Amino acid sequence: MQKIKVAIVGFGLIGSGVARLLLEHKDRLARHAGRILWLEKAVDPDLTRSRNVDLPRGILTDDLTEVTQNPEIKVVAQLIGGLEPARTVMLALLESGKDVVTANKALLAEHGPELFDRARELGRSIAFEASVAGGVPIINAIGQCLSGNQIESLHGILNGTSNFILTQMEERGATFEDAVRDAQHRGYAEADPTLDVDGTDAAQKLAILAQLGFGARVAWTDIPRRGINSLDVADVHFARELGYRIKQLAIARLTGDGLELHVSPTLVKMGMPLAEVREAYNAISVIGDAVGRVFFHGLGAGQMPTASAVVADMIDTAVGRTAITFRTLELWSRRKARVNVGNYANASGRFYMRFNVKDHPGVMSQVAGVLGKHTISIASVLQHEAGGEGEEIPLLIMTHRTTEGAASRACQEIEAFEFVHAPSVRMWVRD
Amino acid sequence: MQKIKVAIVGFGLIGSGVARLLLEHKDRLARHAGRILWLEKAVDPDLTRSRNVDLPRGILTDDLTEVTQNPEIKVVAQLIGGLEPARTVMLALLESGKDVVTANKALLAEHGPELFDRARELGRSIAFEASVAGGVPIINAIGQCLSGNQIESLHGILNGTSNFILTQMEERGATFEDAVRDAQHRGYAEADPTLDVDGTDAAQKLAILAQLGFGARVAWTDIPRRGINSLDVADVHFARELGYRIKQLAIARLTGDGLELHVSPTLVKMGMPLAEVREAYNAISVIGDAVGRVFFHGLGAGQMPTASAVVADMIDTAVGRTAITFRTLELWSRRKARVNVGNYANASGRFYMRFNVKDHPGVMSQVAGVLGKHTISIASVLQHEAGGEGEEIPLLIMTHRTTEGAASRACQEIEAFEFVHAPSVRMWVRD
Repeated sequence: MQKIKVAIVGFGLIGSGVARLLLEHKDRLARHAGRILWLEKAVDPDLTRSRNVDLPRGILTDDLTEVTQNPEIKVVAQLIGGLEPARTVMLALLESGKDVVTANKALLAEHGPELFDRARELGRSIAFEASVAGGVPIINAIGQCLSGNQIESLHGILNGTSNFILTQMEERGATFEDAVRDAQHRGYAEADPTLDVDGTDAAQKLAILAQLGFGARVAWTDIPRRGINSLDVADVHFARELGYRIKQLAIARLTGDGLELHVSPTLVKMGMPLAEVREAYNAISVIGDAVGRVFFHGLGAGQMPTASAVVADMIDTAVGRTAITFRTLELWSRRKARVNVGNYANASGRFYMRFNVKDHPGVMSQVAGVLGKHTISIASVLQHEAGGEGEEIPLLIMTHRTTEGAASRACQEIEAFEFVHAPSVRMWVRD
Repeated sequence: MQKIKVAIVGFGLIGSGVARLLLEHKDRLARHAGRILWLEKAVDPDLTRSRNVDLPRGILTDDLTEVTQNPEIKVVAQLIGGLEPARTVMLALLESGKDVVTANKALLAEHGPELFDRARELGRSIAFEASVAGGVPIINAIGQCLSGNQIESLHGILNGTSNFILTQMEERGATFEDAVRDAQHRGYAEADPTLDVDGTDAAQKLAILAQLGFGARVAWTDIPRRGINSLDVADVHFARELGYRIKQLAIARLTGDGLELHVSPTLVKMGMPLAEVREAYNAISVIGDAVGRVFFHGLGAGQMPTASAVVADMIDTAVGRTAITFRTLELWSRRKARVNVGNYANASGRFYMRFNVKDHPGVMSQVAGVLGKHTISIASVLQHEAGGEGEEIPLLIMTHRTTEGAASRACQEIEAFEFVHAPSVRMWVRD
């Protein structure tokens, strides 16, 4: 059987998972690929750390040129995280004639145009299934399986750490801080979980999906995003009382105003598939004009789920499917973007609002007055009885459909009332 | 831009959906395919029926040779249902040098080995995403995206008609007959719904998945199957009382005894994703040893969801991906099956049993005695109070894990008691 030599650059958790699949399951990969994927080199500066895989002698090296200068190595899994040296290594691999597979969403969200252009110039390919939602084959689904469709919207839970934390807050009543510690303890969150919980990670993944699904060229830093790090467990409970769960959604949606793009904690109606995604799982709900709604759910991170996606890409690349897809889709090419990103202020939907108000006469009429002035209709109000007049109590309002801009202006005005105590809270609602 | 000529054979509901995508969305398909898919011919014996698409003059014909004798037509969507003339047409298309896309699961389940062998001999390909679960890209997921994995199990709701009927029975308390009429009224069920509700359709799809996911060569007629046509709405309610929903599951699962394969009405614990699949939706839960559990949900039938899958396959075929996948996977080839189908009697799991018993002393001890003799442990019992002694009442038993064989023998023995009135009921339980 034909043998194709492959390498891994960046031999950490994911890299050693990929090595395990290549070494321990060589036969079944050969059966699925019609050829043997032969692990020739694994490159990492750390030659001594113990990993949960036994590499045969001579494979592990700290010298990248053992890959770039070996013309027999055709496919490389580039698994270095962060921007540098990942970008430089990626360019060096492409320039030395390798087809590259990567799991690095930050790199693609930041340098996608440069890397994809360079790959095209060199006649090489980049595969990136593992960069979004780990083991869930969403890149392949959008890029290949749904190619008869105009994608109308994507709603995704793309950050497993945030979803784990939200699940702990909802089901165990944990505070955000407690839930973060629990996530760290279980290995779901980094020592510094900022990029996961502030919406950065999800926005980077959304930028990739927006390019793939809609041809939108958008810098991830331009995507409006709110993390869950400012979320009060009280709102988790109020949402539940109203029949919703709070989920961190990454949204891309075609509207008359262009592509709506944002990452936001959102109240999702219980019973909707996205509301029922628990723990560290990822999920994506895609609507295509022909296929209708398709829903994908699985593990978005972790060693073996991510390695599963990387190895599938290595097989696709080895057999030649990636080259075709890469040429055909022309991602991040210099041609005009197919869709413009809309003004976030025009994004429309329903809102949940919480104002901490002093319970005295006239509060409700003044709050309602401001909403009315901004033509925001109230769908429902929830205010529990206060202990005594003058006490501060939460006033919860669910609005009918309005715009982000109107809701934002109305909330600012309401917050200016002296009977309202900061912080007030505003979140999108999906049902 | 390059142009590739395609044709449709069998111009019914799905065929006209495919034509709509090809004609009305030519530009976006060209963007996704890197070339224009040009509909050259649509073949159907009925030239007069009105369809919801306007074909340009000269496309519709009743003469298949206008396709087979036109060497410029490269890709053909073969959308004739049933076995003949579908098989003969398919062979004629392959022999005239066409790559074929099909949605016909009955044809593949029955004649897959012959058709795939012939395509290989001729250097042609067959794509069949639309044959299982319509718009849900499960064929691509298993054949391509999860290729780093050993698939350990598939649990699917593969027949939308059955699922629609079950939803009506559960949520509206409809009888099976009422729900069938409703499904017919809404166009979800044929005038003769037998193949949908007796498990035939799901077993044919399962035979395809068993080949693709496990390399199992199994005649669909050898797959143990029970339909929902004998289901009593009473059991739907009892299941609900116990915290379950009844779903028609197609199951393929690797066990020490070989591949467990069957189609069965099954009690699925509420809250599990498969339990929450409603109406005419399809869903599949796949477990791979690397990726863990991945869940797919979407419309399994209907004009445009199915057309979406057919057109994705036509694009894959036009760009060359299908040829690679077809060569690589060697489906239904003559090499030895990779896995044997296990003896269904050894399949293991929990069971729900209902016996209609006369309420008199000693019943419970005799029933429990038989179960004990077959080493079946009782997990829970539910028996509501009878109106009076001697009245017939349902005795519900949930067992711990046992085998199909033991459960079957025990039930036969229990049914033989004179205080038990037929029919008794036995279903698998999944939680």
